[in-house]
Amino acid sequence: MESEESRVGLKGVLAAVLTPMDEDLNPDHQAFAAHCHRLLAAGCHRLSVFGTTGEANSLSVDERLAALEALVEGGVPPEKLLPGTGSCALTDTVRLSRAALEAGAAGALVLPPFYYKGVGDDGLFRFFAEVIERVGDDSLRLYLYHIPQMTGVDLGLPLISRLIDAYPGVVVGTKDSSGDRERIMTLCRQSPDFFVLAGTETLLLETLQSGGEGCISATVNVTSRLARQVYDAHVSGKDDEAEALQERLTQLRASIETYPVIPALKQLMADLSGDEKWRNIRPPLSSLDEKRTKDLLSSVPLTELL
Amino acid sequence: MESEESRVGLKGVLAAVLTPMDEDLNPDHQAFAAHCHRLLAAGCHRLSVFGTTGEANSLSVDERLAALEALVEGGVPPEKLLPGTGSCALTDTVRLSRAALEAGAAGALVLPPFYYKGVGDDGLFRFFAEVIERVGDDSLRLYLYHIPQMTGVDLGLPLISRLIDAYPGVVVGTKDSSGDRERIMTLCRQSPDFFVLAGTETLLLETLQSGGEGCISATVNVTSRLARQVYDAHVSGKDDEAEALQERLTQLRASIETYPVIPALKQLMADLSGDEKWRNIRPPLSSLDEKRTKDLLSSVPLTELL
Repeated sequence: MESEESRVGLKGVLAAVLTPMDEDLNPDHQAFAAHCHRLLAAGCHRLSVFGTTGEANSLSVDERLAALEALVEGGVPPEKLLPGTGSCALTDTVRLSRAALEAGAAGALVLPPFYYKGVGDDGLFRFFAEVIERVGDDSLRLYLYHIPQMTGVDLGLPLISRLIDAYPGVVVGTKDSSGDRERIMTLCRQSPDFFVLAGTETLLLETLQSGGEGCISATVNVTSRLARQVYDAHVSGKDDEAEALQERLTQLRASIETYPVIPALKQLMADLSGDEKWRNIRPPLSSLDEKRTKDLLSSVPLTELL
Repeated sequence: MESEESRVGLKGVLAAVLTPMDEDLNPDHQAFAAHCHRLLAAGCHRLSVFGTTGEANSLSVDERLAALEALVEGGVPPEKLLPGTGSCALTDTVRLSRAALEAGAAGALVLPPFYYKGVGDDGLFRFFAEVIERVGDDSLRLYLYHIPQMTGVDLGLPLISRLIDAYPGVVVGTKDSSGDRERIMTLCRQSPDFFVLAGTETLLLETLQSGGEGCISATVNVTSRLARQVYDAHVSGKDDEAEALQERLTQLRASIETYPVIPALKQLMADLSGDEKWRNIRPPLSSLDEKRTKDLLSSVPLTELL
């Protein structure tokens, strides 16, 4: 049923991978590759690096390219990667998407351009069309990254349909971080050939039951083992077990997302790994303060993580 | 009263300069320099290149650096330039700001990082502080660029005060494109040493009367002559003349901002110059369609422009 190595489409549990940073707030390539290996070992089907959780838009294009290269050199199989290649600049998105393709990644997760607001569907369509034409390789697999709470840009369903129609086999899926359950399930049911990944593991089982493919989630940096168990129980037809596991997974996620999620996840990684460097984070994000760190660690059961 | 060549602070009428583009949507360096010369000749005190109107966040860092270099090579005096150096990535903003400084520009107009939302004042403060520390040159003159309708980020007055206190002589001013009249006039009155430039020429006279320094505006690409007349009448103490000119300027601006402003300005430049290339615009922005072009040209008196 599932073709793990196929580049046609993604399926399963993906972490939106954190980017560990050194004291100067540069990506720590060694720690980054080690974290990727750990996540794959813990059950992630694939890894979405350089997304919102990975602070990708706080990195320069050169920093993103160097880190991608370092991951592959560090033994992370490129076909396991779905790099975020979005930016506000057409030429940056083209360069990043081409690099993902050339590295052998499973696809490219592309944000709409997010500086200008209210530009309308024609402008957004033209942006994605230009990206695809300029990359100029029909082995590109493009996933539309919908996260309106950050971008302030709506990727409406008519625009998505228009892109699928114009670039079949290239525009192949979406990561939907809107948190809009109805929208995600509509997408799952509406387009059987379109790969739908929910932006939270809270919706993992429901997405799979509705014909979607899985999830790409920030909190999967620490919940990958349990999320994979939900997935496996579902594909084995063990519905009751899947429901029970999903319930626990949803609770775990809820206990983390009470806090600013990226700083909280970096704090949890610091505690799980014993490496304080994990707390490093680029502005405008900030590490959790002492009080919130204490609250977090008392409310999230570390032994159930990773 | 006014020290034209001083790098201490800006004063007067500044255009937020359009970036002309060739058929491949690359910045057209020659047309860009020619437009800058034209604007200075028409009365602009200085030029804010690479802002929202200049589609700067639709360009890569390398494209912005190359265009800045080309302007200086094209004979545009660097001290007449206030380049936008904002981006969502700390390292990009540092690189662009340092380049502006090294080119001899009058300052750097810096956006807050605009990908993440709701990060709080501490994170924003830390971003600007890191930029200043990393540029590491106290001849940097930093102008805070407030345009919440694009960034989704609020640069609140307490944050601005905190930055001025921490970096006196470096954080020297602001371009305020919020359209919030009360806020702009409060800033003018509150901080006599802080340079306040309204983001629209509609507020030019009122800003000057309240102790502010002038405006940086998109529509000044085509209204610079009249805007300069308002400024000159004000500094000469010809209050009635200034008011009358301001009224006409406000009408002109209103007739343009009925349309999507950047496409409308590029269309007007195409008509004023007879060069259709001026219509080229990077997605996600789109040129005006035929109907809107016709409406625009019938409602804006071209003979009064530039």
